[in-house]
Amino acid sequence: MSDLVDLLREGLPEAAVVTDPEVTAAYRQDMAGFCSSGNPAVLVFPDTVDQVRHVMRTATALRVPVVPQGARTGLSGAANAVDGCILLSLVRMNRILEIDPVNRIAVVEPGVVNAALSQAVGVHGLTYPPDPSSWESCTIGGNIGTASGGLCCVKYGTTSEYVLGLDVVLADGELLRTGRRTAKGVAGYDLTRLLVGSEGSLGVVVGATLALRPSPPPQLALAAEFPSTAAACVAVCAVMEAGFTPSLMELMDTVSVRAVNSLAQMGLPDSTAALLLIAFDTLDPVADLAAAGEICTAYGATEVVPAADSAESELLLQARRLSLTAMDTLGTTMVDDVAVPRSELAAMIDGVAAIAERFDLTIGVVAHAGDGNTHPVVVFDASDPEETARARESFDAIMALGLELGGTITGEHGVGLLKREWLAREIGPVGVALQRRIKAAFDPLGLLNPGKVF
Amino acid sequence: MSDLVDLLREGLPEAAVVTDPEVTAAYRQDMAGFCSSGNPAVLVFPDTVDQVRHVMRTATALRVPVVPQGARTGLSGAANAVDGCILLSLVRMNRILEIDPVNRIAVVEPGVVNAALSQAVGVHGLTYPPDPSSWESCTIGGNIGTASGGLCCVKYGTTSEYVLGLDVVLADGELLRTGRRTAKGVAGYDLTRLLVGSEGSLGVVVGATLALRPSPPPQLALAAEFPSTAAACVAVCAVMEAGFTPSLMELMDTVSVRAVNSLAQMGLPDSTAALLLIAFDTLDPVADLAAAGEICTAYGATEVVPAADSAESELLLQARRLSLTAMDTLGTTMVDDVAVPRSELAAMIDGVAAIAERFDLTIGVVAHAGDGNTHPVVVFDASDPEETARARESFDAIMALGLELGGTITGEHGVGLLKREWLAREIGPVGVALQRRIKAAFDPLGLLNPGKVF
Ligand SMILES: Cc1cc2nc3c(=O)[nH]c(=O)nc-3n(C[C@H](O)[C@H](O)[C@H](O)COP(=O)(O)OP(=O)(O)OC[C@H]3O[C@@H](n4cnc5c(N)ncnc54)[C@H](O)[C@@H]3O)c2cc1C
Ligand SMILES: Cc1cc2nc3c(=O)[nH]c(=O)nc-3n(C[C@H](O)[C@H](O)[C@H](O)COP(=O)(O)OP(=O)(O)OC[C@H]3O[C@@H](n4cnc5c(N)ncnc54)[C@H](O)[C@@H]3O)c2cc1C
Repeated sequence: MSDLVDLLREGLPEAAVVTDPEVTAAYRQDMAGFCSSGNPAVLVFPDTVDQVRHVMRTATALRVPVVPQGARTGLSGAANAVDGCILLSLVRMNRILEIDPVNRIAVVEPGVVNAALSQAVGVHGLTYPPDPSSWESCTIGGNIGTASGGLCCVKYGTTSEYVLGLDVVLADGELLRTGRRTAKGVAGYDLTRLLVGSEGSLGVVVGATLALRPSPPPQLALAAEFPSTAAACVAVCAVMEAGFTPSLMELMDTVSVRAVNSLAQMGLPDSTAALLLIAFDTLDPVADLAAAGEICTAYGATEVVPAADSAESELLLQARRLSLTAMDTLGTTMVDDVAVPRSELAAMIDGVAAIAERFDLTIGVVAHAGDGNTHPVVVFDASDPEETARARESFDAIMALGLELGGTITGEHGVGLLKREWLAREIGPVGVALQRRIKAAFDPLGLLNPGKVF
Repeated sequence: MSDLVDLLREGLPEAAVVTDPEVTAAYRQDMAGFCSSGNPAVLVFPDTVDQVRHVMRTATALRVPVVPQGARTGLSGAANAVDGCILLSLVRMNRILEIDPVNRIAVVEPGVVNAALSQAVGVHGLTYPPDPSSWESCTIGGNIGTASGGLCCVKYGTTSEYVLGLDVVLADGELLRTGRRTAKGVAGYDLTRLLVGSEGSLGVVVGATLALRPSPPPQLALAAEFPSTAAACVAVCAVMEAGFTPSLMELMDTVSVRAVNSLAQMGLPDSTAALLLIAFDTLDPVADLAAAGEICTAYGATEVVPAADSAESELLLQARRLSLTAMDTLGTTMVDDVAVPRSELAAMIDGVAAIAERFDLTIGVVAHAGDGNTHPVVVFDASDPEETARARESFDAIMALGLELGGTITGEHGVGLLKREWLAREIGPVGVALQRRIKAAFDPLGLLNPGKVF
C-alpha cells in the first residue's frame, strides 16, 4: 500500500495524492442508491495527461484496480470505489483547450463541467447539445463515460452523436488517439463510439474533440394537463407521427409535479394526472406549439398553456430539471431508467403504476417522453429493511417490464453496479461473451473499473 | 474444394451455390481501381439468416475465408475476393421487414437497396437520410459495412447516426443481436457503432433496425460560380460560420463540370473554375438561399443562380451525382476520399492541383464541401504502365497531404485494400494494435474478409 503511494508520488505533485481516509471516503460513491462501494487505497487528482499515464503505469506494475471518476453524479454506481483501488478523479483536468467556430468543434479536457462548456461555446453562437439534468455539475468525461442524454435528445441526439475523437490512456499507460477533427472519417474501426458509454472500463478519457452546432433560436414550451398518463402518451405518439420534432418532450406524473411544487413553489397544476411539456426551437415556435397543442387537446388534454416567452419556458424546464431532486425530499429514492419504443410508453407507465400498487410503494415517473425513456422514481424508507427490499424488487420488476415491452434496461444512466445482473438478460450470452472479449482486448489484466458493467 | 461446396449445399438451395467460374469471376471485384482480387472458390446467395449461419459454420469448420458482398459499388476493394474464399453475397436478402411510423424505425434485411428503402419510407412521410451517390444500386448492408455518407451528411450525418441495432452472424455462425428498437439505450458497449464501418471484417450483417426522420420540405438549391476553388472554399466556411446548416453543400471543379456537361448536356457553366452547389430544406429555403448567395457574392462568386423550383434543384443534384461516372469517360479513374477540417479545404484543393501538376496528370475534384470531404479523381491511361505508376503515386501524395492538414485518409469510402498501408500512418501503432485485438475478439481464426482494413 505505501509502495503504491510512494510510486504514485514519483509522477504526481504531493497535493494530488490523497490518502486521508476522511477525504477518500467522501469520494467512494456516486449518486446511485442500492449500490455498495469498497475502500479505496488512494485518491489522485492528476493535472496532465502524463500524470494520468503515470497513474496507469503504476496501477499496471502493481496490479491495482483503478476507478475513473468525474463529478460522481452518476446514477448506476459506475464510479463507486472497489476495495484497494486508486480513485482516479479527472476533475482538475478542466481546461477548454480550443473552440473553433469555423469547424464547429471544441477540444476539451475531461473534467470540464457540461454547463461550463455550454456557456463558453454559447459566446460563439454555438451549442453543445447533450444536456443531462445534472449539467451544472457533471463533467464531459462522465458524460462520455455514460453516453449521457438529456432533455434535448429527442431532437439532437445523445453524447454519442457529438464525440468526434478521443485521447485515451489505456490500462498499461499507453496513449490512444481515436477519431478525428473532421466532420466525417471512417479510417478503421470506430473506437471513439465504442469508448463512449464504456463506463471507465476500457480506458481513461483525457481529451475529447466534440462537435458543436449553431445555437438554435430560443425554445418556446407549452404545458398540457392530461386526465391520465395513458392519454398523455398517446398524444406524444400523435405529435411525433404528425412529423413534428420538438426540441423537448417531457412527461411528469402527479407525484413528480407535486414534489416540484412543494420544493420550489412553481405553481404547476397540482391536480393533474400527467403534465406534458413540449418545446420547439424552430423558426416559428408559436405556430408549432399551437399545432402540437391542438393535438394534445384532440387526445384529451384538459388544459394547454403555452409559455408567453422564453423566460416562462425556462421556468417549465427548470421544474422538469428539478424533479429528481424534488422527489428526494419524499424519502429515499431510486431512479430507474428504462426506455421503450415510444409506442409502448403508455403500457410502460401504466405498468409502473401497477407495480407501485403491487409493492405498496410510491413510484413517481418523469420521462423523456419523446424518446420513450422513462425514469420511474421509487420512494421508500431506507431505515425500514422490509420496505427497502420491496423497493429493490419493484425496481427489478420495472426493468423486467421494460424488456417485455421491447425496451432496454437503461436508456442513459448506464449499467454500472446497479444493473449488472440485468445486462445479460437484455443482450444475451453471445453479446456478453463478446463484450468480455472486447474488455480483455483493451484491459487484459482487468484493472479498469472491475466489477462494473458485467 | 468440392468438400466445401458439398457442405455448403447441405444448408443452401441448389441455385444459391454458384461455382461456374465465369459467374464467380464476375463477382470478384468492387468498383475500386488499383486493387487486386483473388480467385473465389464459390459464390453463395443465401436467402435467410439460417443459411448465412450455415455458410459461416461451414467456413469455420473448413477454415475457409469469407468475403461479404452487397452491390459491390464500394470504392476501396473491401468487397474483393481473396484466393479460395466464399463470396457471400447478401443481395437476395432484400426484404423490408417493417416500417413503423410511430417509432420512426425501419427493420430491413441487408440486401435492400438504399433507394428502395428511401422510396418505401417516403410513402409514410419519412426519410432515411444517408444518400451515397450510388444510392440507386448500393445496399444497406454495404452502407453499414462502409459507414457510408452522401450529399446530405452535412446536415443529417452518416449511416453511423441511423443504425439503432443489428443482427449479425459471427465468424463461427453464432447470431449476435446488438442495440435496440428504442430511441436511446446504453446497455453495455456500443457494438452497433463498432460494427458500422467494419467492412465485413467483424461479422455478417443479416438485419438492421434503422432510425428514420420525418421527410423535410423539398430542398431548393443554388449554383454559384467562382473564379477559383480557393474562393469557393472560403465561401463554404463563411456560410457555415454564419450559422447556416445547408442540406447539401457540394463543390465541383472545372474538370468535373466539363465531364458532366459532355456526358449529359446539363448546361453547367463550362468556363467556371469552381461551381458551388448549396441547398436548403428549411421552411423558407428561398430566404436562406438568398442569404447564402449573398455570402457567395461577397467572397467572390461571379454568378449566383438559385434554382427556380425543386425540379431545377434536382437537376443540379443529378449533375453532382453523375460526376464520378462522368469522369470515368475521361480515362481510367481512381477516386480518392480525403477529408480535412473544413477550414483546410482550400489548402487541400490547391494542394491537389499542385500534385496534378507535379505528376503531370488530370485530377478533377468533387467535394462534399460542407464536410471538408474531397474526392480527388485521378484520371490516367491504364494501358500506360508509367502513367499508371504516376497515378498511384499522386494518389498517395493526396493522402499524405490530407494527413498533413489534420485530415483523414478516408472520409466515407473506407480502407479496404486500397488504403491498408495508410491506416497505420493515420491511427498510429497503439491504435492498430488495439484494432487487431478487437478483430481477434470477434474473429479469432481471421476468416472474415482477411487482408482488408489492416
Ligand atoms: C439530479 C441528476 C439528474 C441527472 N440527469 C441526467 C440526465 O438527464 N441524463 C443522463 O444521461 N444522466 C443524468 N444523470 C446522471 C449523471 O449525471 C450522468 O451519468 C453524467 O454523465 C455523469 O457525469 P459525472 O461527471 O458525474 O461522472 P461520474 O458519475 O463521476 O462517472 C460516470 C462514469 O463515467 C466514468 N468516467 C468519468 N470520467 C471518466 C473519464 N475521464 N474517463 C473514463 N471514464 C470516466 C466513471 O468511471 C463512471 O463509470 C443525472 C444525475 C443526477 C444526480
Ligand atoms: C458512382 C459511385 C458513387 C458513390 N458515392 C458514394 C457516396 O456519395 N458516399 C459514400 O459513402 N460512398 C459512395 N460510393 C461508394 C459505395 O457505393 C458505398 O461504399 C456503398 O456503401 C457500398 O455499398 P455496396 O452494397 O455496394 O457494398 P459492397 O461494395 O458490396 O461492400 C462494401 C463493404 O461492406 C461489406 N459488406 C457488404 N454487405 C455486408 C453485410 N451484409 N455484412 C457485413 N459486411 C458487408 C463488404 O464486405 C465491404 O467491406 C460510391 C460508389 C460509386 C460507384
